[in-house]
Amino acid sequence: MAEKYYVGFDMGGTKMLAAVLDTEYTECASEKMRTPVGAGNKEMLKAIAGLVQQALDTAKVDLKQIAAIGIAVPGPIDRDKGLVIDLPNAGMHDYHLRDELESRLGARVVLENDVNAGTYGEFTSGAAKGKRNVIGVFPGTGIGGGIIIDGALYRGHSGRAGEIGHMIVEAGGRRCGCGKYGCLEAVCSRTAIAKDLVHLALNGQAPTILDKAGTDIAKMKSGVIKKAMDAGEKAVIEVVERAAWYLGVGLGSCIDIFDPDLVVIGGGLVEKLGRAYLDPIERSMRAHTMAAPDTKLVEAKLGDDSVVIGAAVLAAKELD
Amino acid sequence: MAEKYYVGFDMGGTKMLAAVLDTEYTECASEKMRTPVGAGNKEMLKAIAGLVQQALDTAKVDLKQIAAIGIAVPGPIDRDKGLVIDLPNAGMHDYHLRDELESRLGARVVLENDVNAGTYGEFTSGAAKGKRNVIGVFPGTGIGGGIIIDGALYRGHSGRAGEIGHMIVEAGGRRCGCGKYGCLEAVCSRTAIAKDLVHLALNGQAPTILDKAGTDIAKMKSGVIKKAMDAGEKAVIEVVERAAWYLGVGLGSCIDIFDPDLVVIGGGLVEKLGRAYLDPIERSMRAHTMAAPDTKLVEAKLGDDSVVIGAAVLAAKELD
Repeated sequence: MAEKYYVGFDMGGTKMLAAVLDTEYTECASEKMRTPVGAGNKEMLKAIAGLVQQALDTAKVDLKQIAAIGIAVPGPIDRDKGLVIDLPNAGMHDYHLRDELESRLGARVVLENDVNAGTYGEFTSGAAKGKRNVIGVFPGTGIGGGIIIDGALYRGHSGRAGEIGHMIVEAGGRRCGCGKYGCLEAVCSRTAIAKDLVHLALNGQAPTILDKAGTDIAKMKSGVIKKAMDAGEKAVIEVVERAAWYLGVGLGSCIDIFDPDLVVIGGGLVEKLGRAYLDPIERSMRAHTMAAPDTKLVEAKLGDDSVVIGAAVLAAKELD
Repeated sequence: MAEKYYVGFDMGGTKMLAAVLDTEYTECASEKMRTPVGAGNKEMLKAIAGLVQQALDTAKVDLKQIAAIGIAVPGPIDRDKGLVIDLPNAGMHDYHLRDELESRLGARVVLENDVNAGTYGEFTSGAAKGKRNVIGVFPGTGIGGGIIIDGALYRGHSGRAGEIGHMIVEAGGRRCGCGKYGCLEAVCSRTAIAKDLVHLALNGQAPTILDKAGTDIAKMKSGVIKKAMDAGEKAVIEVVERAAWYLGVGLGSCIDIFDPDLVVIGGGLVEKLGRAYLDPIERSMRAHTMAAPDTKLVEAKLGDDSVVIGAAVLAAKELD
């Protein structure tokens, strides 16, 4: 009998990543491609299956050796039914991705929320390795959250636990994409920062932003923000530090509620802005907790790999 | 060998309660007394031991039959060391209550946070019986919280989890007793309500409050608030409904984070004000959650007994 392997797959909004892992959860090979925007159900299925096969070829592993494929989905799913409910970017709607992929590849598939997968990846192989109770937070376009309790991913009653980005830190505050007001995501995601930066650019208070991204909120990427901060644009630094302060308010509350071993933070803003972003988050987090003010905030270590590793290991644990 | 029993003890701020439970966790007898305010370590020990003995006498149970005594403490403790860190009301400070009580009574003792015990009592025998993931919240002088995850009390990394009352729902809002600003406790505990009622009484907008409690914040008990609401004092009803709205904001966030089977709510405000308080909490809670808007808010069923039952059962599970 040939050796056993697992596949982790990240259906990211801009790129997709497939990785092959051995039974020690070590990555043997990975392949990536640009996400085919608006592809629709059938084309996405073909693209996913193709990228999985490509990664297997690179790893010189046969499909028959794959014990589990974990697919991380950046949108609402029904895990039990293996259903992708809605993924507007990829044009995928009400699609039984698990069953379709299983019959196409002849291997077992598990769907997972991408932030849960990312948090779990950092827990099994990254910054939170060896811990028991962990909060994962990933500020980006939105703010994703994942929770590890007693060494297991915590899903809650109906599989929707972990929405740390939708904890309200400012009752009646800015409107959130979810329809509530004052959610962490509404006051300190990259989208929230971008709204303020557009305003600054219009007012002439952020020349670097204006130069690199104009006044288009869709162009306010982390790299642009970084450039303006490096250029010493005070108003931009203030907007970022204010967002960091709010994130610290939310994380402080999470510590008072969960008393975790540590908090892992990752995602594009963290990767691009580094300590200029993390230091004010950490100061605010400590100022806004009473239960365990010594809880550590650590940077995620695995980058894009956290999601594919987490998805593969979660699928392996479920199907093995 | 004689049958086995457990004792649960609640060191409340105003009264103390001791209960004897059999191995089915059914209460055989209980006794209570007024808490001896400012008694100090030694006198409190004597009072606790005396009340335990009294409950045993009533139940016709011998100390030798007691397999575990659970003591619920309304203040900071070090569970591992069996230490009561600070209990100003009783005048107890840095006291090894567990060991002192064990050597005095010759039975095993476990200390527990009182809100954890209350939540656990409702979980084993009350409104949350048979559930797996439960949030308990007890608005009163402060706002206590307890968390049951996967059928077990969740304590976190350093035993300080569950501080739902110190989750910040209004960043930069009212100052809390803990030193932070905008905690749930700061904006909607009975103390927060009382601050507003004193103001109303002073302004002539709450004649019933002025009549029953004057302008003394310490006299704003739940019963007085109930009388003013029953008298139709609009400003008082508004203050209570505003507090209920804030509590719903916090509970909605808890649902988005935990996705629990249900939320149990208890304590003096709930018991006195009933639906006039619970209905606006429930409406606000549903409006402020996106993950699981159908999560139920249920009223605690056991009243004062939840704490003694929870303390006894937690001690039983630990020592048996």
